[in-house]
Amino acid sequence: MTVTHPKGFKASGVAAGLKTSGNPDVALVVNDGPDYTAAAVFTGNRVKAAPVLWSQQVLKGGVIRAVVLNSGGANACTGSQGFRDTHATAEHTASVLRSARKLMIGPGDIAVCSTGLIGELLPMGKLLPGVNAAVKALSADGGPRAAEAIMTTDTVAKNAVAQRDGWSVGGIAKGAGMLAPALATMLVVITTDASADNETLDAALRAATRVTFDRIDADGCMSTNDTVLLLASGASDRQPTLAELTAAVTEVCHDLAQQLIADAEGATKHIAIEVAGAASEADAVQVGRSIAGNNLVKTAFFGNDPNWGRILAAVGTTSAAFEPDRIDVAINGVWVCKNGAAAEDRTKVDLSGRDVKVVVNLREGEMSATIWTTDLSHAYVHENSAYSS
Amino acid sequence: MTVTHPKGFKASGVAAGLKTSGNPDVALVVNDGPDYTAAAVFTGNRVKAAPVLWSQQVLKGGVIRAVVLNSGGANACTGSQGFRDTHATAEHTASVLRSARKLMIGPGDIAVCSTGLIGELLPMGKLLPGVNAAVKALSADGGPRAAEAIMTTDTVAKNAVAQRDGWSVGGIAKGAGMLAPALATMLVVITTDASADNETLDAALRAATRVTFDRIDADGCMSTNDTVLLLASGASDRQPTLAELTAAVTEVCHDLAQQLIADAEGATKHIAIEVAGAASEADAVQVGRSIAGNNLVKTAFFGNDPNWGRILAAVGTTSAAFEPDRIDVAINGVWVCKNGAAAEDRTKVDLSGRDVKVVVNLREGEMSATIWTTDLSHAYVHENSAYSS
Repeated sequence: MTVTHPKGFKASGVAAGLKTSGNPDVALVVNDGPDYTAAAVFTGNRVKAAPVLWSQQVLKGGVIRAVVLNSGGANACTGSQGFRDTHATAEHTASVLRSARKLMIGPGDIAVCSTGLIGELLPMGKLLPGVNAAVKALSADGGPRAAEAIMTTDTVAKNAVAQRDGWSVGGIAKGAGMLAPALATMLVVITTDASADNETLDAALRAATRVTFDRIDADGCMSTNDTVLLLASGASDRQPTLAELTAAVTEVCHDLAQQLIADAEGATKHIAIEVAGAASEADAVQVGRSIAGNNLVKTAFFGNDPNWGRILAAVGTTSAAFEPDRIDVAINGVWVCKNGAAAEDRTKVDLSGRDVKVVVNLREGEMSATIWTTDLSHAYVHENSAYSS
Repeated sequence: MTVTHPKGFKASGVAAGLKTSGNPDVALVVNDGPDYTAAAVFTGNRVKAAPVLWSQQVLKGGVIRAVVLNSGGANACTGSQGFRDTHATAEHTASVLRSARKLMIGPGDIAVCSTGLIGELLPMGKLLPGVNAAVKALSADGGPRAAEAIMTTDTVAKNAVAQRDGWSVGGIAKGAGMLAPALATMLVVITTDASADNETLDAALRAATRVTFDRIDADGCMSTNDTVLLLASGASDRQPTLAELTAAVTEVCHDLAQQLIADAEGATKHIAIEVAGAASEADAVQVGRSIAGNNLVKTAFFGNDPNWGRILAAVGTTSAAFEPDRIDVAINGVWVCKNGAAAEDRTKVDLSGRDVKVVVNLREGEMSATIWTTDLSHAYVHENSAYSS
């Protein structure tokens, strides 16, 4: 059910005191090979945290042997000292892995991920001893503890697996606020014991994130730290086709993305917005994102109000192909809007449950896409106003 | 202080029963000439309410003799019946003005504005008698009553005037939610007794709205009904230059825009975001809007948290020219961020008052722009979830 499900991986999660709560805050995932191929997708935000800049460089080397992750501090907007701290973290992790586990490993083989408050330096005096403890705690069933150690305002740890015949893909994720298109704010580590070269992994990962993490949006805010890593050990000795690998990676990404939306800060609704009848997939995605990002739509769902007029107003801000007087909208199966005007009685819509399904039919073509989002609740305002994060 | 301050205008506001509260809900502004020149700016939303489509046609005729406005219903997403209702409203208003005031006036001279819930037909059986009452109530000091009759969730009526030597510009506005760039959700009627042709009025109005209404953003949502009308009576017999007229219209638009932000739904902060050192004005506006539209920034201000990291993350989502490690940010005069990293102690920032001033210096050039916005509060969530609007 996690990153240590595929063969060839060990993981751990320990408490190093970065979080004032005393909860686990340093995680480590190590690839024991025989392969060390990897792919990654990083935040589209131009203000990138130091660990993102570091991991982008590591990826260019073509090999990722280990990932060290911390919660309790994003190490973003921390200037050159922040970058030196990330470098020191990778150096230290490599050094401890070399001496403790006899691995031939350098800092350039180690990806680093951080999450937490932006703008503050990490307490290196706590983090580095935490790395020592994390190396000591490494185990073949340590995935769930790694998942716990990367939680911030998450209320549950996120793990997933896709089992295939003789090989598998596993993953862990964190993410609760700052979930937006072009990567939700999140850290994700995905592992597989399949054998695949970097190009194949990259193609599979990009195809998977495009229809999963890139299609969730909790609050429209794009983070400085988003990272999705895919590590392959080749320990299964199986070499799936690109299509097979893509399907399995997509399954894990979809599972984790839905867990992120389900646990998004303050959410009381899990909303799927299917845009059908679009002239292109890009149009469908654009319209879905516009609806998902609209505060008036999101507050209406929080209030159990099937306010389709706000949905049409959100569609109207896009450049997608549509005619206002041809759009149909269904909310939980009731076609409240046909041809851009009121149709079935809106009081028929049952919004008492957590799951909401919106279908918007643009009636312009055959393409469709689904965007998942949440409502905008008092709890969201509370969580994001009462605490710095 | 209002649309009836300039000579040549009468106005009224009456209760026709469109609002369940019994508050005034039908307003009328009549231009008694001798000129009937006009200009207008309409919503950029592609889903346009029937009255917007109607008024766009009226404007093409080059003359606006009167504006009839109603709250209690937006007449948006109401199909062909909605358009027929708007047409009937203009016909009826013209007919009553002809018989009651002997004006040579047709429906094509009358702009129509509506605001309220999207997706429901207007109760014409109440609206048309309301027009009769509004015509009867017309007076040379009726501007404030017209301003009251267009309120929705506004808590105060908005009036403004710019007095010049021998001529003036006056205005009324409504708008509380759905305030966004490319027109806040609002209805605005501006009058002047200056003499100006349609081209001059159009140039003055566009220059004014570009730096006022287009630079406020309460919740990022663009409405289906936004309309800003400028009517000139020529009754002062003065013909200001374009620059003079633009300055006076801008003064009234700025005053009304600040009133809109001050009264935005659930706002507890009035936030000015000045983006300086930009390579272009467009860059400055783009960065300002990105910050103003960011829910994490807005909730932080609601919580009195000078969270400059969220501001940098919002800057990072733009395509403006900047280097992450050169950006400076001040909040209420304290430079909490220099060169993209922490600088002065954030605890020095006093956010206890209602007014917040953010300065973001991109250090790329000489251009600047200010965007005004609000915080995201519990009251915003409450107002937009508890009531359909």
